[in-house]
Amino acid sequence: MTQDPTAGAKPYETDLDKTPANYAPLSPLSFLPRAAAVFPERTAVVHGAERRTWAEAYARCRRLASALARRGIGKGDTVAVMAPNTPPMWEAHHGVPMAGAVLNALNVRLDAAAIAFILAHGEAKALITDTEFAPVIKEALARLGREILVIDVDDPQGPHGPGGGERLGGIDYEAFLAEGDPDFAWAPPGDEWDAIALNYTSGTTGNPKGVVYHHRGAYLNALGNVLVWGMAPHPVYLWTLPMFHCNGWCFPWTITALAGTHVCLRRVEAGAIYRAFAEEGVTHLCGAPIVMQMILGATDEQRAAFPQRVEMMTAAAPPPATVLAAMEQQGIKVTHVYGLTEVYGPAVVCAWHEAWDGLPIEEQAALKARQGVNYPVLEGLMVADAETLAPVPRDGETLGEVFLRGNIVMKGYLKNPSASEAAFKGGWFHSGDLGVWHPDGYVELKDRSKDIIISGGENISSIEVEGVLYKHPAVALAAVVAKPDEKWGETPCAFVELKPGACASAEEIVAFCRDNLAHFKCPRHVVFGELPKTSTGKIQKFVLREQAEAV
Amino acid sequence: MTQDPTAGAKPYETDLDKTPANYAPLSPLSFLPRAAAVFPERTAVVHGAERRTWAEAYARCRRLASALARRGIGKGDTVAVMAPNTPPMWEAHHGVPMAGAVLNALNVRLDAAAIAFILAHGEAKALITDTEFAPVIKEALARLGREILVIDVDDPQGPHGPGGGERLGGIDYEAFLAEGDPDFAWAPPGDEWDAIALNYTSGTTGNPKGVVYHHRGAYLNALGNVLVWGMAPHPVYLWTLPMFHCNGWCFPWTITALAGTHVCLRRVEAGAIYRAFAEEGVTHLCGAPIVMQMILGATDEQRAAFPQRVEMMTAAAPPPATVLAAMEQQGIKVTHVYGLTEVYGPAVVCAWHEAWDGLPIEEQAALKARQGVNYPVLEGLMVADAETLAPVPRDGETLGEVFLRGNIVMKGYLKNPSASEAAFKGGWFHSGDLGVWHPDGYVELKDRSKDIIISGGENISSIEVEGVLYKHPAVALAAVVAKPDEKWGETPCAFVELKPGACASAEEIVAFCRDNLAHFKCPRHVVFGELPKTSTGKIQKFVLREQAEAV
Repeated sequence: MTQDPTAGAKPYETDLDKTPANYAPLSPLSFLPRAAAVFPERTAVVHGAERRTWAEAYARCRRLASALARRGIGKGDTVAVMAPNTPPMWEAHHGVPMAGAVLNALNVRLDAAAIAFILAHGEAKALITDTEFAPVIKEALARLGREILVIDVDDPQGPHGPGGGERLGGIDYEAFLAEGDPDFAWAPPGDEWDAIALNYTSGTTGNPKGVVYHHRGAYLNALGNVLVWGMAPHPVYLWTLPMFHCNGWCFPWTITALAGTHVCLRRVEAGAIYRAFAEEGVTHLCGAPIVMQMILGATDEQRAAFPQRVEMMTAAAPPPATVLAAMEQQGIKVTHVYGLTEVYGPAVVCAWHEAWDGLPIEEQAALKARQGVNYPVLEGLMVADAETLAPVPRDGETLGEVFLRGNIVMKGYLKNPSASEAAFKGGWFHSGDLGVWHPDGYVELKDRSKDIIISGGENISSIEVEGVLYKHPAVALAAVVAKPDEKWGETPCAFVELKPGACASAEEIVAFCRDNLAHFKCPRHVVFGELPKTSTGKIQKFVLREQAEAV
Repeated sequence: MTQDPTAGAKPYETDLDKTPANYAPLSPLSFLPRAAAVFPERTAVVHGAERRTWAEAYARCRRLASALARRGIGKGDTVAVMAPNTPPMWEAHHGVPMAGAVLNALNVRLDAAAIAFILAHGEAKALITDTEFAPVIKEALARLGREILVIDVDDPQGPHGPGGGERLGGIDYEAFLAEGDPDFAWAPPGDEWDAIALNYTSGTTGNPKGVVYHHRGAYLNALGNVLVWGMAPHPVYLWTLPMFHCNGWCFPWTITALAGTHVCLRRVEAGAIYRAFAEEGVTHLCGAPIVMQMILGATDEQRAAFPQRVEMMTAAAPPPATVLAAMEQQGIKVTHVYGLTEVYGPAVVCAWHEAWDGLPIEEQAALKARQGVNYPVLEGLMVADAETLAPVPRDGETLGEVFLRGNIVMKGYLKNPSASEAAFKGGWFHSGDLGVWHPDGYVELKDRSKDIIISGGENISSIEVEGVLYKHPAVALAAVVAKPDEKWGETPCAFVELKPGACASAEEIVAFCRDNLAHFKCPRHVVFGELPKTSTGKIQKFVLREQAEAV
């Protein structure tokens, strides 16, 4: 055998390095100039009577980046935005990182203390704020105790009307844009690992953390949405999901990659949704189950006919069979996804099998209630023992923690290395959610790990108990937490909000549970009253846990 | 103003590093285990009566990777494959890189000398070869003069029938797979810049170069296809485009990312195409214009009715209006793309505007004849001066060279740093193709830079002259090259292959050109006869150039 003289020279690793010709940092910002160049006259952003083409939208984003740069804001600086789903919020998703800065979209339902904490922790250099929120922002800025650049957005559709609302900063958003250059030569990130966004967790456990996203992950999850949803070019996307929520699940960039149309929605309500369906030809929307309830609960006056098929992506709670069937009847197909702030929004999808189409709707709903499988851009998903990280059997029964790994997992928590380390321990992101793994590989959530109740050594899923409570005709909202117990360690304690006009006794509720649950899982105590909720409407179990101790 | 004590600490660059939880090298190999896990029972690969599910297909790819690894083949080793579009060729696109090796798919039309050159230059350690090609491979191996692992593929659909054909190696493909472990724990690439494939240019200029692809680029172009084509999950893809051609434009990975179905086609002919449309429900296919001609030129016996709409992607020559109209009538929508081996296949697409749908078919064809705009995963495309790289005006007239840059540009040429350096000079990939830039940003090719004729200081596009020659009723094939000329520098020389039974004189052809072209562009000489072609059917202009000198 003749020896090749070059053997051992590792030809594939020699003289084949990265160059500007064959390597560019991945960034979702690359989609915008392409949309503007290829489809300059197509409608990019709609906000009531305001309609802007891709050429115009790009020019505005460049103005924003340029104006920020002129004020000295650049790489690694944080720019916060307090706004509903309006054009400035969408523009900030591009213009802020085009200046090299990091977008910190604020939850508009937060109070002044929380906003002040975030502005301080995130070290915001600038704040773009819609005048609707002037009162809370004014207080937050007072608490912050340092001067930052404040830019007021005066949205004519805002509650105060054109020109209305208190100004907190020295300049209005439109005047600020006018300072900027529409041909600004912005630079893509130097490294795809550079931060693009900062999103604070909602704090169901009382302690908000700053989740940092990078350009690479935002690019990949933007494309992941296209893959799992089978999106064709030019979707018409209705902004029912807040853009401050995980950067609108990366859809500000997804829709731009497809040169679609962003239909803004300042206030999410049934009439506006149907009008957008009928008048704008909306093809896609996302949102929590409350949006489906709005659509289905619309009055005849709010409704409008629309000919197109609409796709809706939902998360947070599995859609019940009756809701799925009713949505289908409206011409809206529902896709169930799962994610967390730490994974850029959705990273898991209940990928549908055509074979399931023929099943009874109840069975379809049971299948669709599962969170599902990894996005193609998420490299790993498993249900495993929380300590050993040994995968649980795929039996649909053994409870474990849900773990995710890959390119759409966050960069980490800002200025919180111990939290980042704990979250990434063992080379997987620890979701804190508990679930089972079905034989077909689909994951189904059962509980938050913090919400599990351990009574006499037995695990009790608070979700399971709540599921039974929700079947009681008088119950509007229910939450079950652990109450410390000398004998059993913990026992389930139920908090119930009754439907208007309904009434029920604690004994009645407990008896109902005993008819429908293993006895050890039944609540020992039932407390009636309004439940405490976070700014995003999630029930604050940590508050209930404190109350349960005192019961 | 209170100073923040942490200012200057660069919080976004501190304690936010890559970990196994949040970073994985991009690789198209990640799509296969997902397809197998989520859709194990779906049909992955069809080859005549052979039908394999995703679970089975994945197991076979793992067996291949395992068997290669057991023979000592691993990272940076080259594995060549000589096969038509059959399951082993598709499996090699996954199994070879799953072993860490680099896939070198050979053009089955090459002769023994070219194959021997490639096996030697690429340092192949193994060769998987379909017995149909035993004669040419036998000679190539003799010329190579060193022993390599040879694995024979005995395809029952091959010309020799089951068990037929000469064996050149010690083991058949199926026996080789049987050596491997279907549960092989293969490892993803350690670096996304690692080589995944080696593809030799077809050598229109006489000198084949080994183009190296990396995992990152293959991943991104696989997704780029989904984006530009608006592909939904589960396409049924017909393999009319050779997989040895730029790795089938990355579709072996695209279709896998969407858990679609690969329909193999050993021999591309009209009857088999229509059968696949009708029996397999094909939704997508790619191919050169010759495939369209086959579809349109099918006999009644070859045709079969099919209800679905089919999408076809084509490159190499712009589809004429009559062909587009006829394809539409068959229920097939044509998308025009452009690329080169150096950019993973297609990297430019004639992105369609709905507004164009209403235009007369001739105008639509003229718009669609343009190569178009960058894929969303290609960061840069321009027409510019070949020397200064200054972009030409977007006037649709000024000729320049087409330049591309970004993540789907090759790693470089294997063991050819001077060629790589020349190709990437100035931070852009020099395509060698000449074109114009239209006011709407769409690129239109006019010629290969080597094929331009400069006569009396005037540029003459050989494509333009050929376009006129093709309008002459007697002309079957035409090629125009430069003939050195003392007075003019160069003059156009035409080589013409006449249609069977047709006849024409040189004077007649020249007169025809003078009626249809500026006189300085008309050929001074016309040579009749069969034109020399490469193994992929491209006309070898470098041969004609030599002949022209002697005319």
